[in-house]
Amino acid sequence: MTTMKTGFDKIDTTAAVVSVKHYLLDLQNRICRFIELEDGKAAFLEDKWEHKEGGGGLTRVLTSDNVIEKAGANFSHVRGQQLPHAATARRPELADSAFQALGVSVVIHPKNPYVPTSHFNVRFILVEKEGQAPFWWFGGGFDLTPYYGFIEDCVHWHQTAKAACAPFGDEVYPKFKKWADHYFFLKHRNEPRGIGGLFYDDVNEWGFETTFAFMRSVGDHYIKAYQPIVAKRKTHPYGKQQRDFQLYRRGRYVEFNLLYDRGTLFGLQSGGRTESILMSLPPLVTWNYDWHPQPGSEEAALYETFLPYRDWV
Amino acid sequence: MTTMKTGFDKIDTTAAVVSVKHYLLDLQNRICRFIELEDGKAAFLEDKWEHKEGGGGLTRVLTSDNVIEKAGANFSHVRGQQLPHAATARRPELADSAFQALGVSVVIHPKNPYVPTSHFNVRFILVEKEGQAPFWWFGGGFDLTPYYGFIEDCVHWHQTAKAACAPFGDEVYPKFKKWADHYFFLKHRNEPRGIGGLFYDDVNEWGFETTFAFMRSVGDHYIKAYQPIVAKRKTHPYGKQQRDFQLYRRGRYVEFNLLYDRGTLFGLQSGGRTESILMSLPPLVTWNYDWHPQPGSEEAALYETFLPYRDWV
Repeated sequence: MTTMKTGFDKIDTTAAVVSVKHYLLDLQNRICRFIELEDGKAAFLEDKWEHKEGGGGLTRVLTSDNVIEKAGANFSHVRGQQLPHAATARRPELADSAFQALGVSVVIHPKNPYVPTSHFNVRFILVEKEGQAPFWWFGGGFDLTPYYGFIEDCVHWHQTAKAACAPFGDEVYPKFKKWADHYFFLKHRNEPRGIGGLFYDDVNEWGFETTFAFMRSVGDHYIKAYQPIVAKRKTHPYGKQQRDFQLYRRGRYVEFNLLYDRGTLFGLQSGGRTESILMSLPPLVTWNYDWHPQPGSEEAALYETFLPYRDWV
Repeated sequence: MTTMKTGFDKIDTTAAVVSVKHYLLDLQNRICRFIELEDGKAAFLEDKWEHKEGGGGLTRVLTSDNVIEKAGANFSHVRGQQLPHAATARRPELADSAFQALGVSVVIHPKNPYVPTSHFNVRFILVEKEGQAPFWWFGGGFDLTPYYGFIEDCVHWHQTAKAACAPFGDEVYPKFKKWADHYFFLKHRNEPRGIGGLFYDDVNEWGFETTFAFMRSVGDHYIKAYQPIVAKRKTHPYGKQQRDFQLYRRGRYVEFNLLYDRGTLFGLQSGGRTESILMSLPPLVTWNYDWHPQPGSEEAALYETFLPYRDWV
């Protein structure tokens, strides 16, 4: 039992890990439950796995021909002897440190192109270096990737994101909304991945208790943000044109996750369980060379109305 | 008109660029011709594009419902003010140097799962740093990615690769075959991408004339290696099971190209034309969570017989 000190507080690392783990497992249950309810047909399959250096995870995947084509909700608690590059690029002093990483990652790929894809992740990283005080931080967020947008859904999504941040200060939502805009961006296409939401990383300056409370608020509000959108749009009629556009746009999701996503690269570099990490990839994807939407079309509206950065609340 | 010196020879850089470009454009034509002949139906579309810092390229893409579902054959000659990370990781002294890169990249995704995917690339990089002698190197290779393997095709592929290397020394094929085995490897899956072939990079120790002759030999032998395999397998009967397996395995191709491929990352980092770089991605792809072939099946044979490293000649 060691204590951790960030310059802001001093706490019991064992108790911290137990509390975070307890919350994350419950959150995973709650997320899986609402997804199953919205789908109304399929159930999550569950895989328990062990990490070679310690710890492991609980991967849950649902595939359905009803509402949710593929959903992954992954809890993991891994231990490692060497913090991966993806986490030490901005903290070179932590290279070669033993670490624990606890998190829940969720990616939902609905079947109906009028239901947006959503992504959620929260994580807690604890680094323990011999002879030094433990070091920790929280990260996470959620973002929405529509194919065919609805203004009111985007407003609801961001209002809920703002509500998640409100108890922690008025500056929190604008800061993490902007961070999401910056993070969920495909540089090689000069294109945002979707309409964003929240992204944060390396947060420890509020002290452990408050930052952990913020993680819980983000987790709880993800469900409130996404569930009503799925419920409202899942019966929207669509045809081959909309499906084709969805499959094409899903290519951007793959590109983002494999080229940029910190969690994906962290997982693959730390010898994580590949199938659990890549459960985020869509079930069916197309790449069409140099495709562009017809000007004035519903597809063009995504690029013109929804992807450009906006203040949605 | 400057001269280049590698410690091995001294040549005219302008003449070198002209010669390499002439060969590459002719090679691109020859590759597109044999692909069109094998397809028998579709023709390549052509896009000329310009690179913002200078130079440009000629992208050719064919999509067909006959034999070749998607083929990309890209010539590019780009100039830049700053050599990208992907090329300077092992040459930090070249950071911030002006460069030219000339190359041809080809990826062929056939429709029939019994026809393997193939990839070919050759490139010439020339770096000119103020006050220093120019520096250059060649790189390239080709590799084959079967879904359903045939021993005789793999032997033919590697025999042709060996023939490409033979005039340059007996040690060349084993060395570059091994390099391909090492390079075309998905670390996160602990799995080779296919049966390999040749890979080389940073080659300049033979001097310009010989290394350029080697590029030509690799280019010419790629056609001899691949064309007969397409011709022989394109009419092989297949059904949904084989098609599903092909779409699933294509996911590995996407993972490799976006996570590891030096050419892809070089291109994206150097502000290359994204659609030309990502023409390598398959037209239709699936990801199935934690899928495994039935033991003893034709699909399992890929993992058991073809992917493990072998001496094919």
